[in-house]
Amino acid sequence: MKLSQRSQVDPFLAMDVMDRANSLARSGRAIFHLETGQPATKAPKIALEAVVRAMDSDVLGYTEALGRPALRARISKYYRDTYRVDVPPERILITTGSSAGFLLAFIALFDVGQSLAMAVPGYPAYRNIAVATGVRPHFIDCRDRSQFRFRASDIAAAQGISGVLIASPANPSGTVIAEPELQKIVDVCDERKLWLISDEIYHGITYEHRAQTALAISSNVIVINSFSKYFSMTGWRIGWMVVPEALVRPLERLAQNMYISPPTISQIAALAALDAAGELDGHVRAYAANRLRLLSALKESNFGEIAPADGAFYLYADISPFGLDATSFTKRLLDETGVAATPGLDFDPVEGHRWVRFSYAGAQDEISRAADILTQWCRNLRT
Amino acid sequence: MKLSQRSQVDPFLAMDVMDRANSLARSGRAIFHLETGQPATKAPKIALEAVVRAMDSDVLGYTEALGRPALRARISKYYRDTYRVDVPPERILITTGSSAGFLLAFIALFDVGQSLAMAVPGYPAYRNIAVATGVRPHFIDCRDRSQFRFRASDIAAAQGISGVLIASPANPSGTVIAEPELQKIVDVCDERKLWLISDEIYHGITYEHRAQTALAISSNVIVINSFSKYFSMTGWRIGWMVVPEALVRPLERLAQNMYISPPTISQIAALAALDAAGELDGHVRAYAANRLRLLSALKESNFGEIAPADGAFYLYADISPFGLDATSFTKRLLDETGVAATPGLDFDPVEGHRWVRFSYAGAQDEISRAADILTQWCRNLRT
Repeated sequence: MKLSQRSQVDPFLAMDVMDRANSLARSGRAIFHLETGQPATKAPKIALEAVVRAMDSDVLGYTEALGRPALRARISKYYRDTYRVDVPPERILITTGSSAGFLLAFIALFDVGQSLAMAVPGYPAYRNIAVATGVRPHFIDCRDRSQFRFRASDIAAAQGISGVLIASPANPSGTVIAEPELQKIVDVCDERKLWLISDEIYHGITYEHRAQTALAISSNVIVINSFSKYFSMTGWRIGWMVVPEALVRPLERLAQNMYISPPTISQIAALAALDAAGELDGHVRAYAANRLRLLSALKESNFGEIAPADGAFYLYADISPFGLDATSFTKRLLDETGVAATPGLDFDPVEGHRWVRFSYAGAQDEISRAADILTQWCRNLRT
Repeated sequence: MKLSQRSQVDPFLAMDVMDRANSLARSGRAIFHLETGQPATKAPKIALEAVVRAMDSDVLGYTEALGRPALRARISKYYRDTYRVDVPPERILITTGSSAGFLLAFIALFDVGQSLAMAVPGYPAYRNIAVATGVRPHFIDCRDRSQFRFRASDIAAAQGISGVLIASPANPSGTVIAEPELQKIVDVCDERKLWLISDEIYHGITYEHRAQTALAISSNVIVINSFSKYFSMTGWRIGWMVVPEALVRPLERLAQNMYISPPTISQIAALAALDAAGELDGHVRAYAANRLRLLSALKESNFGEIAPADGAFYLYADISPFGLDATSFTKRLLDETGVAATPGLDFDPVEGHRWVRFSYAGAQDEISRAADILTQWCRNLRT
């Protein structure tokens, strides 16, 4: 009795580091969580209040597989308000986090053996969900040569692919795809009849230029989004997809069977969270301050290249000046200082051993203290 | 740009009926929800209280992919208390409902093209998740000839299978597999080196004999369970798996990538719900009363055969005396009376057109009124 071949996916190392960090924290150690994209903040206040009210009045049973109509309608309004794009509620599907969006999309769009283009470095679950569902990751090298930016020309050059997955802002690099390039990506996908999946879960968290939604350019794309990041609701596991009309019913059938429905209480919290821009934009200002603080610590500590970090809340930094591989670097850093960070192998199976990702989604004082500790530790490492 | 072959799964008809019923309810119609296994009751009171406390003190971020250690430890105690079986916390994985358990198990245990034996009639997501993940459902006919009971001899006779999926109490039939038969099933799976997946999500809801867990017989089985049914927490999307030790890490890697972590607030509610046996056993007494009420209505209305209903909260009844197929029967019943029920095609693609499933998980007054309306409607149907 053997396990399947496809079960042999890589671990999500950030989660492994978090487990180890949590275990150290339970033993009484002071831990600085820079390993996952976990905001220090709760769900918005009005979301929590909505939850308390709902627990009183609502059985909180199964909902429609595509999510409650009120939430789908509210997200439609969000697209009008935020991007001035008209997205009918019927094309919006509520999902159990963006994780469910990827799983549903990969299964609905690709058969076993088809290839999906994706950036390296990139979010590890892309390639690992692909492997688990029999889809072949086709890696587009977005390392230093292109300043970590995914370009339309990469797609034009890729052979044998059936779809393209882009992320803007991207994890771990933070790069934002500028609108003219996004237009070109949509065009080349249209031309080559490739499915285009646009991961927009870090929208709302940018530091210079706002990221544009692919929906502003085409209604023939699959957009995946989530309440985890900008809305500060990771553990609530709630997100959404926007899909072309012809995909709604096939995805609904899959969602009915694979998920039944997204968590009800989280749908209620999400609906309220859409009205909390004031509170949420405050979090983004804190991320901006953290970003500057941590950037200056990394530069002072003589890290190598650092990816652009136009958005999201990660710094992806070259550690080769320290003469340690990423696994040793992050393990020693955690054990010796309590600062948890994620080895680049999560994002890049080939070159990741010389990169580390630091998340600055934490509280300002935590990031600031972690930056001090990191600077000190790096100084001792070199001497 | 075509959708994948594997996206062509059947809908989960109970969910389609629920959508239609909810839509009628929004238009002001009185609706009786007998279409889904949705208790009328909320999560236990102490679970809701725990949620309120947690929202105050906890950021509710990502947890460990396998779930919080405290919940895994508490479920271990639950096995000791309920079944006198020793299950170490390390073998217990918290999942986003049993849905995630099935998806993880199918992907981890079977490669594309392998076959999994399952009963017909049976829960539709079994075969539909199998199709979506490239696993072939091998149907074991458990229709009238075996009184809807899955038997070890069915497995012994099945050719070319790699695993067996059993459910006790079963949906839609309510049948419980007696312990001696369960022992034989475990033995034949051991002998033939087949993975055995035991769906135990209706445990706790039985009317004569308690269902035995497969874990009392072997630690080499995969048990899937959930807080949805006995614990009355469907919309919270929280469940668990118990697996052999060698499967923990492969499943953890898959869960990290496919789910990140189960909903945090639901883990907190679940932990408290494990101490609410008094309240929950009261719900089971209400189901028992509903069962008798609805059984007598179906008999009075001259339905054909009714599956045993030893446990769970469904009656699966032959409608051939009425001369309508299940789709017309349930559509007319809903449109003409507001009573929602699920056509048997959900559970049996071949013979299901002559069966309907009624859920009696609703409130006693709702089921009682629905029973009256149904009896009256059936009487008019025949005249």
